[in-house]
Amino acid sequence: MPDKPVFRPGIMLENLHQKSPLIHNITNYVTANDCANILLACGASPIMADDPLEAADITGLCQGLHLNLGTPSQSRISSMLSAGKRAARLGIPIVFDPVGAGASPFRIRAAGELLKEIRFTVIRGNLSEIRALSKDRQQEKGVDAAPSDKITEENLEQAAAFARQFARQAETIAVITGAIDIVTDGIRTFCIRNGHPMMNRVTGTGCQLSALTCAFLAANPGQPLEAAAAAAAAMGLCGEIAHKRLGSLDGSGSYRTYIMDAVYHLTPDQLEKGGNYEIR
Amino acid sequence: MPDKPVFRPGIMLENLHQKSPLIHNITNYVTANDCANILLACGASPIMADDPLEAADITGLCQGLHLNLGTPSQSRISSMLSAGKRAARLGIPIVFDPVGAGASPFRIRAAGELLKEIRFTVIRGNLSEIRALSKDRQQEKGVDAAPSDKITEENLEQAAAFARQFARQAETIAVITGAIDIVTDGIRTFCIRNGHPMMNRVTGTGCQLSALTCAFLAANPGQPLEAAAAAAAAMGLCGEIAHKRLGSLDGSGSYRTYIMDAVYHLTPDQLEKGGNYEIR
Amino acid sequence: MPDKPVFRPGIMLENLHQKSPLIHNITNYVTANDCANILLACGASPIMADDPLEAADITGLCQGLHLNLGTPSQSRISSMLSAGKRAARLGIPIVFDPVGAGASPFRIRAAGELLKEIRFTVIRGNLSEIRALSKDRQQEKGVDAAPSDKITEENLEQAAAFARQFARQAETIAVITGAIDIVTDGIRTFCIRNGHPMMNRVTGTGCQLSALTCAFLAANPGQPLEAAAAAAAAMGLCGEIAHKRLGSLDGSGSYRTYIMDAVYHLTPDQLEKGGNYEIR
Repeated sequence: MPDKPVFRPGIMLENLHQKSPLIHNITNYVTANDCANILLACGASPIMADDPLEAADITGLCQGLHLNLGTPSQSRISSMLSAGKRAARLGIPIVFDPVGAGASPFRIRAAGELLKEIRFTVIRGNLSEIRALSKDRQQEKGVDAAPSDKITEENLEQAAAFARQFARQAETIAVITGAIDIVTDGIRTFCIRNGHPMMNRVTGTGCQLSALTCAFLAANPGQPLEAAAAAAAAMGLCGEIAHKRLGSLDGSGSYRTYIMDAVYHLTPDQLEKGGNYEIR
Repeated sequence: MPDKPVFRPGIMLENLHQKSPLIHNITNYVTANDCANILLACGASPIMADDPLEAADITGLCQGLHLNLGTPSQSRISSMLSAGKRAARLGIPIVFDPVGAGASPFRIRAAGELLKEIRFTVIRGNLSEIRALSKDRQQEKGVDAAPSDKITEENLEQAAAFARQFARQAETIAVITGAIDIVTDGIRTFCIRNGHPMMNRVTGTGCQLSALTCAFLAANPGQPLEAAAAAAAAMGLCGEIAHKRLGSLDGSGSYRTYIMDAVYHLTPDQLEKGGNYEIR
Repeated sequence: MPDKPVFRPGIMLENLHQKSPLIHNITNYVTANDCANILLACGASPIMADDPLEAADITGLCQGLHLNLGTPSQSRISSMLSAGKRAARLGIPIVFDPVGAGASPFRIRAAGELLKEIRFTVIRGNLSEIRALSKDRQQEKGVDAAPSDKITEENLEQAAAFARQFARQAETIAVITGAIDIVTDGIRTFCIRNGHPMMNRVTGTGCQLSALTCAFLAANPGQPLEAAAAAAAAMGLCGEIAHKRLGSLDGSGSYRTYIMDAVYHLTPDQLEKGGNYEIR
């Protein structure tokens, strides 16, 4: 099998630039500004609305729905449920970002309720967040064990097997991000080696990837796995481009700005050439 | 009539620098940080407070009130009502930014209630937002049709006529922003040609203008039309100045920073010379 | 007494870099992003969670708790109470930032309730905020008068006496920030002359210092007074470093970014040499 058969992330970015989808974000107040700005930077449009009195109505105007579990409240969870159901009826993509999923019983319950009620197109989190989501499901037989720590070259195969099983059981595309990103629908698996560790020193780069993923999905219907992989490669590549630009005095403040700049300038050609991935 | 008779935006900016008004913002959580920072950059001071338990008390300390409909909730709308009533009693300027006014029945109802209960000094939005506000009023006779799309040189006269009629009916100063900004009290109309299209790629530049407008109004009592026009020219001019500064790698992230820098450095003289407007 | 006896702020920063404490922030939505980013910049990790359904559980995972009174709501105050009680049981440091403490009866009541129920390790505010907190206590005898305005060289002794008395009565470490920062446990007093007036033109530098203080405390148990002084010196020094970097077009937007960059790059050695303080 040739290395890059049908996966054309550059074309997907071109579609995003051309279609400029409107994305509804129900998200935490810490990084909402970053999510709005990355959607504008990549050519999409954001709308934020998290009150149950309007959440589903807002979803009805949009081409994608991004749900984020950061700074959760009962009201925001209710909005996610009603928005998610509307999105499902409309057939638009839904991305779920289970921020801090295992950090409190409230988040575990909320995530469990959302997983039960909504079929997410993509769930994106780090390994410990996805592991927390999978725990409810471990009474079922044959669950692969997740590696106990971060994704490395050494535990990649084990992490990929865990991701595939999680994706199949949750009937979703799993995007597990770390030093290596794993993107899988339970059958095909992308391992993406873009990105830079310094991205962890800027809050919201994960949330931003979830928003960006939703935009890629909305602009590329029918190819959700490839769109999710393209988004992960794009975000990581922008982290690399921004890192190369850092001067000796630039730190995490400038890095945050440069990542946004890189997303703004990213071309289909850059993404096509700079994406560093393998398909397993 | 000479082109620039009594309108002296530079003097208005000087007043703002000298008086340093305190502005109460009841605004969305997406761009609250941007609003606070632009008020500090222009020499004013921000306070954010959106709980009904304190909204009116906070207004009582301030020289201006900025209400913004983004990420609305019933609680925040209640705060807007009580703060707006206090502001009216105190005679301080009230700026309303109807973010996404037509996006949901909840926003339409909320905007309608606010319009009914509070006489805003200025309402600032894009054409579709102001059109959404005017719809409730269209049963009344003689409402000029709003252009169906954005403001251009071609539909400017039609848009200005619509703005004037909206301003008269809502007893406010209408600020409709776009490629050309229209600022009118229903009688005199400023058409302002400052700004840059890339401002649309940064979230919150509209919210920031609304906050800035409130600061200009607070520092220039008795001249609300001119103050609103000066604010729109100032924001647009800063968007131009910031755009000229962009290097080849700078995108929307750096642009956001440079706009703030330009507001921080804007001098009365720069604004006097750089304002690009006509009075109709 | 030699001028710098046991106070080694550089070693405290080194401890912070090595221990990377997780800090729970219950804070306003205006500067939550800034607080998260400064914690990441200094080597700590942030988690934001403000719902009563999970606040205490989140605190249970953390090494420090930062409570901030900006944009207060009854729900957030309830969360502060339950989180504060959990933190007290766990023996982890609690930093309270009484943003706008005197601005409304609601904030005064909320601050009073928090002060009554929780013993804060540190309370950090400007002079007028700390003065507002002390008012409830003025029926008690012998309260030193706070200077009526900002801290200057002229009123420093009076402000320090006020700070000491406040610290003793509230059984806390008082950090009163201004042109000169006063840090005292009621017995020993640090007067810190780092910082730059332009920091006041960026929203959230105070909130950021409170978050940073919590991180220093968490990484240096048993030395809360010194840790709070080290944090104040570090923040001020970063404000100085960032200010030196400003180019002619850079304003408050760039300054905000450069402060974050300076925190990211700050070394123990820089802090050891650049801290400008005296112990009274």
